[in-house]
Amino acid sequence: MSRVLYHAQFCPFSRKIIFGMREKKLPFQEVIEELGSPSARLLSLNPWGELPVLVDQQLVCANSYVISEYLEEVYALPVLMGESPAYRSEVRRLMSWFDKIFYQDVFWCLFYEKVLKYKLKGNPPDTRVLKKGYTLLNEHMDYVEQLAETHHFLAGKNFSWADITAAAHISCIDYLGDVAWKNFPMAKEWYIKIKSRPAFRPFLSQMAFGVRSCEHYGSLDF
Amino acid sequence: MSRVLYHAQFCPFSRKIIFGMREKKLPFQEVIEELGSPSARLLSLNPWGELPVLVDQQLVCANSYVISEYLEEVYALPVLMGESPAYRSEVRRLMSWFDKIFYQDVFWCLFYEKVLKYKLKGNPPDTRVLKKGYTLLNEHMDYVEQLAETHHFLAGKNFSWADITAAAHISCIDYLGDVAWKNFPMAKEWYIKIKSRPAFRPFLSQMAFGVRSCEHYGSLDF
Repeated sequence: MSRVLYHAQFCPFSRKIIFGMREKKLPFQEVIEELGSPSARLLSLNPWGELPVLVDQQLVCANSYVISEYLEEVYALPVLMGESPAYRSEVRRLMSWFDKIFYQDVFWCLFYEKVLKYKLKGNPPDTRVLKKGYTLLNEHMDYVEQLAETHHFLAGKNFSWADITAAAHISCIDYLGDVAWKNFPMAKEWYIKIKSRPAFRPFLSQMAFGVRSCEHYGSLDF
Repeated sequence: MSRVLYHAQFCPFSRKIIFGMREKKLPFQEVIEELGSPSARLLSLNPWGELPVLVDQQLVCANSYVISEYLEEVYALPVLMGESPAYRSEVRRLMSWFDKIFYQDVFWCLFYEKVLKYKLKGNPPDTRVLKKGYTLLNEHMDYVEQLAETHHFLAGKNFSWADITAAAHISCIDYLGDVAWKNFPMAKEWYIKIKSRPAFRPFLSQMAFGVRSCEHYGSLDF
């Protein structure tokens, strides 16, 4: 087996690909990179240092968009992108929304600000940025609540890369205890389904850079 | 025929999809939106107002990533994503590099700063931002030069979405005359090939918000 994933802990894009590969039951070796300090080997594979990078036999796939499309094409089962063009468009639309909007508004304002900024630069969080992050998190969780009210899974009746991507992003924020689950009962039911998947479970015992998780982070019943 | 594309002039993501649809010889109606002021109809199709949006019969595809994958799946010929998993990974890697890195570093620092900022906010360009934009444009064109030195087209021997995406972004900047083509002879040869494609030609007579194009913008021999 020569399938190696370069990734970082609590990088939502890395989490997405790890979760997806476990759902597809693809074994892989891991090389853990440090967020913000790419290794020489990583830079030789991807000059922009972006994570994750998958090396599958000889083929190098850099960045989570390229990897998710590659995995879906080459390891088709179980289908995670959806069976019809309409379903696939909805899955991809949601992936792109979480990877762009949710990431930029929430990961940067909360996870970066609270955890990574101190680790990388030694600076404490800026309370104005945190305030903005909480407001946007609530707005975006309202949208997740609407999706979860409408369907069994986020893009429709089947589990997909949309759920994988959403869970990758939301779980990083939930680690900090910042999601007000009581205000989002249907989103919470959806997240309970995700947490009970064997492919997702290993994330629930990870620890982020010496910061303790909130009490319910690892618990299936919260 | 019910295929409608909501797009904006000199939006590189819109250009990408228009160019790709013309290459696939798919007729479509156009609804031209104003950058920065999405219409009510656009917001009803895509709450984030992001362009372009394609409505193909009943199916709504929002954002250029979703649309390019959709077009490739549903209108397979001519193949523009590549024939093998390795080629497709390279095409997607380059699309993502232009849409993320090149766009953020170059479109925002040059096209937005010189043209859109005044139109949207009435503010003149900030010379520090322009300086940063020129530096990054040259760095990124060096990379395009390397790609063009290695292959006939950017991802390899066949024309692909990588060329389409690159041309969409570069042509907006070239309109302003900011690309120092004499320093990038192989990239220039590649761009001559692109300019001579019938599907690309119509962009060469467009005008941006009352700003005149540089002298060579529309010319096939420059």
